[in-house]
Amino acid sequence: MMKTLVIGFGHVGQKLAEILFFEGDGSHGLASLNLTFTGIYTQSRGALLDTEGINVKQALLEIRKNGCFDKNNPQQTSIPLTQAIDELDYDLLIELSTLSIENKGEPAITYITKALERKKHVVTANKGPVAFTYGELSNLARKNNVQFRIESTVMDGAPVFNLAKQGLKGARVIGLSGILNSTTNYILSQMEKGKGFKEALNVAQSEGFAEADPHHDIDGWDSAAKIAALTNVLMQADITPDDIKREGISNITPEKITKALQSGKRWKLICRAWRDKNRVLASVMPEEISQQDLFAAIEGSGSCLRIETDLMNPIVIVQDSPTIKDTAYGVLNDILAVREIAGC
Amino acid sequence: MMKTLVIGFGHVGQKLAEILFFEGDGSHGLASLNLTFTGIYTQSRGALLDTEGINVKQALLEIRKNGCFDKNNPQQTSIPLTQAIDELDYDLLIELSTLSIENKGEPAITYITKALERKKHVVTANKGPVAFTYGELSNLARKNNVQFRIESTVMDGAPVFNLAKQGLKGARVIGLSGILNSTTNYILSQMEKGKGFKEALNVAQSEGFAEADPHHDIDGWDSAAKIAALTNVLMQADITPDDIKREGISNITPEKITKALQSGKRWKLICRAWRDKNRVLASVMPEEISQQDLFAAIEGSGSCLRIETDLMNPIVIVQDSPTIKDTAYGVLNDILAVREIAGC
Repeated sequence: MMKTLVIGFGHVGQKLAEILFFEGDGSHGLASLNLTFTGIYTQSRGALLDTEGINVKQALLEIRKNGCFDKNNPQQTSIPLTQAIDELDYDLLIELSTLSIENKGEPAITYITKALERKKHVVTANKGPVAFTYGELSNLARKNNVQFRIESTVMDGAPVFNLAKQGLKGARVIGLSGILNSTTNYILSQMEKGKGFKEALNVAQSEGFAEADPHHDIDGWDSAAKIAALTNVLMQADITPDDIKREGISNITPEKITKALQSGKRWKLICRAWRDKNRVLASVMPEEISQQDLFAAIEGSGSCLRIETDLMNPIVIVQDSPTIKDTAYGVLNDILAVREIAGC
Repeated sequence: MMKTLVIGFGHVGQKLAEILFFEGDGSHGLASLNLTFTGIYTQSRGALLDTEGINVKQALLEIRKNGCFDKNNPQQTSIPLTQAIDELDYDLLIELSTLSIENKGEPAITYITKALERKKHVVTANKGPVAFTYGELSNLARKNNVQFRIESTVMDGAPVFNLAKQGLKGARVIGLSGILNSTTNYILSQMEKGKGFKEALNVAQSEGFAEADPHHDIDGWDSAAKIAALTNVLMQADITPDDIKREGISNITPEKITKALQSGKRWKLICRAWRDKNRVLASVMPEEISQQDLFAAIEGSGSCLRIETDLMNPIVIVQDSPTIKDTAYGVLNDILAVREIAGC
């Protein structure tokens, strides 16, 4: 039995719960995963705690009905989250809170640090801790012989970190480039079809793939956090989103879009990372790319990452129109890896 | 010290030797790989054997000078290959012979079986054994608690098998599609630029990415072997290249190419696999695809694979213009995985 403490119960958390507790039976790969939620903590929806296991079906029903856990839910708790992290009996912390650029990845970093210090495994979908302080967290996990897994922080369930770890053994990553933010790629695609910026943004938000704060997407912060995360993990860099040369898409006017199309090009918000002597540098910038370029084929909410190494030609991984289910799946993949490696 | 027995010393074997013994120093990931070739067997270049380790530098020099090992090379051996596989002291068999469709993957299957029966690890770049009899070989490896690794058999060094194994935990692969043969994709790309079929084929061969026998490529046999391999490994099928509905590109005339381009399409040789009730079916067929399709962006010798699962939207892995070095790297990645898992 794997006991988990869950932080955050928004779209991703709810979807994960559905897959784990209700859809799982249909998928033979999940059948053997014996897991309980012993705590679910949210910022504004209440908190549930029960060492015997939360009634997840009831929790989902309440969230869907009222947007929060019911006051009369007998598993409601007044024990603060930090105390639960420090004292509760659990094997794995599932950290699903949202990125805070302003707070430089906090409070998620503190939560994860506390759990790792207690030798608990951690799986997170929050890119903040990876973008701001991956080195320290992964060292702490290694020292304490526990797993710190982050697959869903970039490109949702597309296994970019697993691919690099398992598939690029012995090779040195010398450069990365990609389209990593769904919202801006969707907006640029829609503007090419004649839609306005705001109209496209609204659709992205209603479809659920825009980040909570659209400025994070539009101004390139989400992209910056993702390329920082990738760079820290795959290129052993020690940078933060603040170190990245960054420009969003707010200067890409309909006129620029049309002009690019007429000359066989498309505007894309491109993330790049490269080695410069002993440093790793990274940028997020709108670029006009040829329509023949592979990156030009990334439509709508899709994303992609090109990995260049010293030992082979570049490989590219592409994610086709991801949904919230893909992010939840990335988390699930990490949970399964924890079980496999740690045997809990 | 990892002792290896090498079968095949063509382009891939020679490149692997270069990386392992001469380029390795520059790559920190390889520095700790303590490996010797205790035997190198070839079909027409002679065979070397020395339990203390082959002089690989000398072997490479001879091959480059004369196309075969020197008769006076003191490590030349008259011990037959099958005897060496059965009796020699080695940890890992590196099987790099070429695909034989006619012989249904033999003699490579026999070599690999013998090694696995002796509880030796096996790494192969030959897609024959995986396409014709993956189930038996992988069961034998599992039973004997040794590694049977095949990363370079499809898409060279692009880690498709590793990606699926590590990155798609719990998910069920429901379909595969891809462009898997460099030669035909290169020929089709060149024909779109107005080149003739033969001219394009000649370039592909001189660049080293056409298979030894061009009919294997042109008639879709190489693609069929690759989709059979993928299907056997990722969809737990039990099919062979003979079971696959197959059509090559010899009917794609310059007229068809032009007509497709004029209507916004491109001809591509597409491999597909899908589930049909309890069976897995697969095909290799030329298809006209939209120029907006991601697959249309696969230029020249590039290749790609789309993986559909029950738990997330499709992901695509793309390999950009691979060279022989990429195949050698795929083998190297497997060798490093054997070391990591088996600790030898």
